[in-house]
Amino acid sequence: MATKHAPKKVVLAYSGGLDTSIILKWLETEFGAEVVTFTADLGQGEELEPAREKALKLGIKPENIFIEDLREDFVRDYVFPMFRANAVYEGVYLLGTSIARPLIAKRQIEIADQTGADAVCHGATGKGNDQVRFELGYYGLNPDIKVIAPWRDWDFKSRSDLIEFAEQHDIPIAKDKRGEAPFSVDANLLHTSSEGKALEDPAVETPDSVYQRTVSPEDAPDQPEYITIQFEKGDPVAINGEAMSPATLLTALNEYGRKHGIGRLDLLENRFVGMKSRGMYETPGGTILLTAHRGIEQACLDKGSAHLKDELMPKYAELIYNGFWWSPEREMLQAAIDHSQRYVEGEVRLKLYKGNVILVGRSSPYSLYSEKIVTFEDDHGAYDQKDAEGFIKLNALRLRLLAGRDKKAGKN
Amino acid sequence: MATKHAPKKVVLAYSGGLDTSIILKWLETEFGAEVVTFTADLGQGEELEPAREKALKLGIKPENIFIEDLREDFVRDYVFPMFRANAVYEGVYLLGTSIARPLIAKRQIEIADQTGADAVCHGATGKGNDQVRFELGYYGLNPDIKVIAPWRDWDFKSRSDLIEFAEQHDIPIAKDKRGEAPFSVDANLLHTSSEGKALEDPAVETPDSVYQRTVSPEDAPDQPEYITIQFEKGDPVAINGEAMSPATLLTALNEYGRKHGIGRLDLLENRFVGMKSRGMYETPGGTILLTAHRGIEQACLDKGSAHLKDELMPKYAELIYNGFWWSPEREMLQAAIDHSQRYVEGEVRLKLYKGNVILVGRSSPYSLYSEKIVTFEDDHGAYDQKDAEGFIKLNALRLRLLAGRDKKAGKN
Amino acid sequence: MATKHAPKKVVLAYSGGLDTSIILKWLETEFGAEVVTFTADLGQGEELEPAREKALKLGIKPENIFIEDLREDFVRDYVFPMFRANAVYEGVYLLGTSIARPLIAKRQIEIADQTGADAVCHGATGKGNDQVRFELGYYGLNPDIKVIAPWRDWDFKSRSDLIEFAEQHDIPIAKDKRGEAPFSVDANLLHTSSEGKALEDPAVETPDSVYQRTVSPEDAPDQPEYITIQFEKGDPVAINGEAMSPATLLTALNEYGRKHGIGRLDLLENRFVGMKSRGMYETPGGTILLTAHRGIEQACLDKGSAHLKDELMPKYAELIYNGFWWSPEREMLQAAIDHSQRYVEGEVRLKLYKGNVILVGRSSPYSLYSEKIVTFEDDHGAYDQKDAEGFIKLNALRLRLLAGRDKKAGKN
Amino acid sequence: MATKHAPKKVVLAYSGGLDTSIILKWLETEFGAEVVTFTADLGQGEELEPAREKALKLGIKPENIFIEDLREDFVRDYVFPMFRANAVYEGVYLLGTSIARPLIAKRQIEIADQTGADAVCHGATGKGNDQVRFELGYYGLNPDIKVIAPWRDWDFKSRSDLIEFAEQHDIPIAKDKRGEAPFSVDANLLHTSSEGKALEDPAVETPDSVYQRTVSPEDAPDQPEYITIQFEKGDPVAINGEAMSPATLLTALNEYGRKHGIGRLDLLENRFVGMKSRGMYETPGGTILLTAHRGIEQACLDKGSAHLKDELMPKYAELIYNGFWWSPEREMLQAAIDHSQRYVEGEVRLKLYKGNVILVGRSSPYSLYSEKIVTFEDDHGAYDQKDAEGFIKLNALRLRLLAGRDKKAGKN
Repeated sequence: MATKHAPKKVVLAYSGGLDTSIILKWLETEFGAEVVTFTADLGQGEELEPAREKALKLGIKPENIFIEDLREDFVRDYVFPMFRANAVYEGVYLLGTSIARPLIAKRQIEIADQTGADAVCHGATGKGNDQVRFELGYYGLNPDIKVIAPWRDWDFKSRSDLIEFAEQHDIPIAKDKRGEAPFSVDANLLHTSSEGKALEDPAVETPDSVYQRTVSPEDAPDQPEYITIQFEKGDPVAINGEAMSPATLLTALNEYGRKHGIGRLDLLENRFVGMKSRGMYETPGGTILLTAHRGIEQACLDKGSAHLKDELMPKYAELIYNGFWWSPEREMLQAAIDHSQRYVEGEVRLKLYKGNVILVGRSSPYSLYSEKIVTFEDDHGAYDQKDAEGFIKLNALRLRLLAGRDKKAGKN
Repeated sequence: MATKHAPKKVVLAYSGGLDTSIILKWLETEFGAEVVTFTADLGQGEELEPAREKALKLGIKPENIFIEDLREDFVRDYVFPMFRANAVYEGVYLLGTSIARPLIAKRQIEIADQTGADAVCHGATGKGNDQVRFELGYYGLNPDIKVIAPWRDWDFKSRSDLIEFAEQHDIPIAKDKRGEAPFSVDANLLHTSSEGKALEDPAVETPDSVYQRTVSPEDAPDQPEYITIQFEKGDPVAINGEAMSPATLLTALNEYGRKHGIGRLDLLENRFVGMKSRGMYETPGGTILLTAHRGIEQACLDKGSAHLKDELMPKYAELIYNGFWWSPEREMLQAAIDHSQRYVEGEVRLKLYKGNVILVGRSSPYSLYSEKIVTFEDDHGAYDQKDAEGFIKLNALRLRLLAGRDKKAGKN
Repeated sequence: MATKHAPKKVVLAYSGGLDTSIILKWLETEFGAEVVTFTADLGQGEELEPAREKALKLGIKPENIFIEDLREDFVRDYVFPMFRANAVYEGVYLLGTSIARPLIAKRQIEIADQTGADAVCHGATGKGNDQVRFELGYYGLNPDIKVIAPWRDWDFKSRSDLIEFAEQHDIPIAKDKRGEAPFSVDANLLHTSSEGKALEDPAVETPDSVYQRTVSPEDAPDQPEYITIQFEKGDPVAINGEAMSPATLLTALNEYGRKHGIGRLDLLENRFVGMKSRGMYETPGGTILLTAHRGIEQACLDKGSAHLKDELMPKYAELIYNGFWWSPEREMLQAAIDHSQRYVEGEVRLKLYKGNVILVGRSSPYSLYSEKIVTFEDDHGAYDQKDAEGFIKLNALRLRLLAGRDKKAGKN
Repeated sequence: MATKHAPKKVVLAYSGGLDTSIILKWLETEFGAEVVTFTADLGQGEELEPAREKALKLGIKPENIFIEDLREDFVRDYVFPMFRANAVYEGVYLLGTSIARPLIAKRQIEIADQTGADAVCHGATGKGNDQVRFELGYYGLNPDIKVIAPWRDWDFKSRSDLIEFAEQHDIPIAKDKRGEAPFSVDANLLHTSSEGKALEDPAVETPDSVYQRTVSPEDAPDQPEYITIQFEKGDPVAINGEAMSPATLLTALNEYGRKHGIGRLDLLENRFVGMKSRGMYETPGGTILLTAHRGIEQACLDKGSAHLKDELMPKYAELIYNGFWWSPEREMLQAAIDHSQRYVEGEVRLKLYKGNVILVGRSSPYSLYSEKIVTFEDDHGAYDQKDAEGFIKLNALRLRLLAGRDKKAGKN
């Protein structure tokens, strides 16, 4: 990379782990760049303060160390809006990794702005979706930012090259990090994903030991547990009547899901970059939330809204998966989806049992369900069955014209 | 109904039960019509021969009694094509009732043609979807057919009116049929639905006694069971390596599902006729099949096909739900879907456990998954990570132009 | 109609013409109802005050006569929002009749509320789309309103029955109204439609005399005329730099279109009620506006927004055509569309010539076009052509995997 | 480029012009590769034999020179299938350039197979869509092919570098090719496009001199001309009753269009590679064909088919524009579209006049239009207007439930 294009000050998404510590030093040695570290708590389950100490130890100036608890932002502004859409990718995946990237990208760009940095850097590899998600976010929020993707750019060829570089630069190496991990893990408050290496054969069942935040259905309690979730404007606001902040609520749902073995997924998926990959996902609270949200929508959404949402959903989910959160078309779809949620309010009752999330009841002050109309009993004229004849006859008219034509045309 | 429009000969969808026996007599007394009975085995779990005897007893001529085992036709030509689309209505419903109607309608029209009947008749009520599905089928297959829908047309006001009419016409009445059933049931090889009356409050959990063809997850075995399903051109053809005909295979899947408590659903759904209704569904084999089919598609479908299918699916499912199986647009979508299934072939491994259908492996001679490309290990140049930079930069270009414009425009 | 359900006070959409005068009297004689007349100027080109006199003459109380100039409301709140979507039905029709109905329905319901009326009434026939549009609007705005549709309900069998009734009730009959009109006309500020009777054979060219608000292209000036249209937030706000109110602007565009023979359409269309019908439409100003709006969007909309709009448009247009303006799904789509229009601002230059609307230039302070990037000349590094290789290679990856698989599979 | 990856034998898309002659020599000098030239007549209006002579003169072996007239293949297998979909990109563009690339790519791959070549090469630049279209085609047809894109790869910096190279290698240089062309032109039987340089300012009207295959509307005849086009299975087969082969027919339509000033388009479009560009297109015959095809579909397509086609079209057009002709999802859509065309047969009458293509009549043995049903006159019971009430009431039911709910909810 020509020196004249070299970044001067880089905001690095820094976990405190070995790999991003190597990146930190590489940015300094490769470009002579000043490094700003950004470490965020999105609920991945690791303490943040060690990252500060590690950054200091690696020579980062205190004012260049940004450590933030973003769990509430994450759930309120990203996870919940996405769940309003009932978004699933390829029929089943709850987008746990995808949805965390836009927030990280946004904060990196904001910190770059604040600290006068001209570049940002992430630790995602060159084969995956995350590089795309980070970088589309960066560019979509600051068109002039420089983007550094070390895994695509550096010359290290192997794990031992990296370890050697770490040793040269006094980067502490935990014992178990010298070799390759058996698989790669990503986690946040919504989910944990595990993929790669030991999991790469899609025909082979994943060993139970891979799962990190759920018990297996077999090990879950033998007694079902019932919970209720309260919704307002399409978002969950309370469990069993106890109001909670977004992150607190998702944390609580995760605990219910963990205990009852809910939310595991083995998926062979299509990456945006064109290859298939196999991932194991655990989304305990999210899996409960999806069922609950669909349940309250059953009561509160009109058919027109509900079906339009179902038609738009695959595109919306694909946009998030591909990294286009910060795109005008995602915002357009969000505007439509959010409009539909104004009266999605009420309570859903769920039974949790050994991997199952079973919707057993829903009620809402804004329910569109009318027992008076649907009843098999005498409805006292609320619905005139004679209307059905005209409804059917006019819906059938074009089919009758067609059948007449096809008969004439000798269609078999 | 004016006599001059009265039907002369009517093909009645006849179950042999009390209600359709009343309809049979009503057609004779109301219109002086000759009645042809059509009784089909679609896997509803009732014997057919008693229907013949009842029809004879009610005075139907032997040559006017049609009794047919359509289970193979049903699964091969309706259920399996629908499952190629991964069709679910409103996110969850497997369309078990909807998919049976087109075949019944088709056979009624064919029998009308064969027997010279000028009318067909069904026993569906005036509030539901089934009347629409039957009648759109009738009209779409024969534009000139007369359609009789007794529940919309007759003057009976109450159950006791019906019973009185039955007694007048020597229709045998089983003891438990004198009163109203606590809820209404429909069944075929794909599913059982229960709805109405006792189940009408969507906030109240359905009692376990409603379910008819599955044990509850709690009562299912404590040991998981593994099965494999083999697919060809998108359809299942064998279980655990044993080749089976379509209906045999679905019957076997139903037994697996029954045993493991799989496929129950409590749904508050939007009917085509504009109201919401609450239904309890059991689709044991179908629930297994959906997961299995998605599993084999994960290996064999390219991203382009898979995502297009997901986008088209809600419309396809809605068409079937609304009764438009015999419509040109359903056929167009089917042509697209079927085209995608040419290489959907291979084997899926599933773990069945207490209500869960867990996909644990898939393999295919036509798999598009390439471990060589996706691997975290050295891929020997199969994939050039540098390509990702260009891919991202050009995907980002429009977002950068937009971000630059919005910055200029002072967008917040 | 049973007396107990008879309306007491009815808000009638009243044009002052013979047909709605007959309806007025029929409402009084059939139901003993008090009639409130509502006459609106939506730009149909007729004076309103004669309608007041006629209503008075027919005995309507002065306080029950509502006469309103709604042209600005019509264009600002219905026509322009629809044009933001570039809505065309069946590829070509600009929805001129459809878009007027929601406003009329809304005002009728509001006047019913204000005057304590329990019913509303329109003069649309039982075969067309307008009855649906009116009534879906009524019901969607007031679920308890009574709806009277005389053409479906009364017993008159022929034109002479109507004339006889008119004579009996001293309704003045213009000489040329005694017989059937050669075709039926509907007009408002957006368009004129002509259909029925003389125009019913879709193989026969429409005589020039049918057209009412445009000269024929042949009779248009031999010299082209250039105009510019200025847009803000997706709506036109000025012509040739002169700011105008919505209705004034559309009136001016209509005059340009009329003069240059622009906006005629001969369409064989699919009605919501299931039949095909043939209509002749003149939408002079709207035709100019559609080209202009697409032109300014070419500059201001990002590809993602533009393509999403194009995908959503057919559904949006169908909703309006079918009468679902006042539906939640139309509102959802509108929310998405409106979101896209925030920076649709600038100027479009058009050449009008003998039926043609030719876009010849567009410019915008918010243009996303970058000559610097697109140029064939040296772009000084604004775009790196090497990026294209990676872009293509990753877009091709799935196709290559597929081609390899298909080759192996012996696909022909 | 490393020698070990260098191509040994390259099939070059060769026009015989200066640029592809330079590429030819560059392939030899850069890689020592054997060059196979492929020159196709797709109706671009140039003779092919001079290309043979030029290739020979540049030293290409006679057996390595492939010259083919593909006009019939082009129109029959690419243009007509695309027109079955009524495909337009971004509302207006008829995809004239896009649709030619798949055929060229296919023939290059076939010739590579036949001649044992390991690589293919095109002359498209690194900023445009054509590079993507060629290369997605190559890779989609042969996953192992080497692709050479000289404009992205070579070191020439300017036009004078190229001219110098040409002189060094005795490539003949026409006088007018020494400087830059004022704009870039692409042509085939469907269209001519002109873009770049002098046309780059989207606010400035294109001078008439740019247009090459149409007269201006002003210069077109003062008398309209009527033609009829006959269709079978959705494709045009005759003009004015005279049967013609696909290419002959399109050639004839082009001549009609040319004469009457039909089919010019000034478009600011969104390229797949992320930038906007401005193009001038002339598609005389295609513009006539689009109107004609929509016209015959008006008669022969049921509403369900027609509306589904309209909904799918934008995606189909985008796929072709982006170069995904040889993709499974394009094939899926084509299967759906082709299914709809089985009865699209009959005749359309058009009036051509000074830029206008005016549909004035359509007729078909398979028309679904029924004058008997639609008529304003007495229809003798073909359509029962009372049916409309039930149709509307059930369509309104959900809106009424919603309005009742919203009233209760105090929605404003």
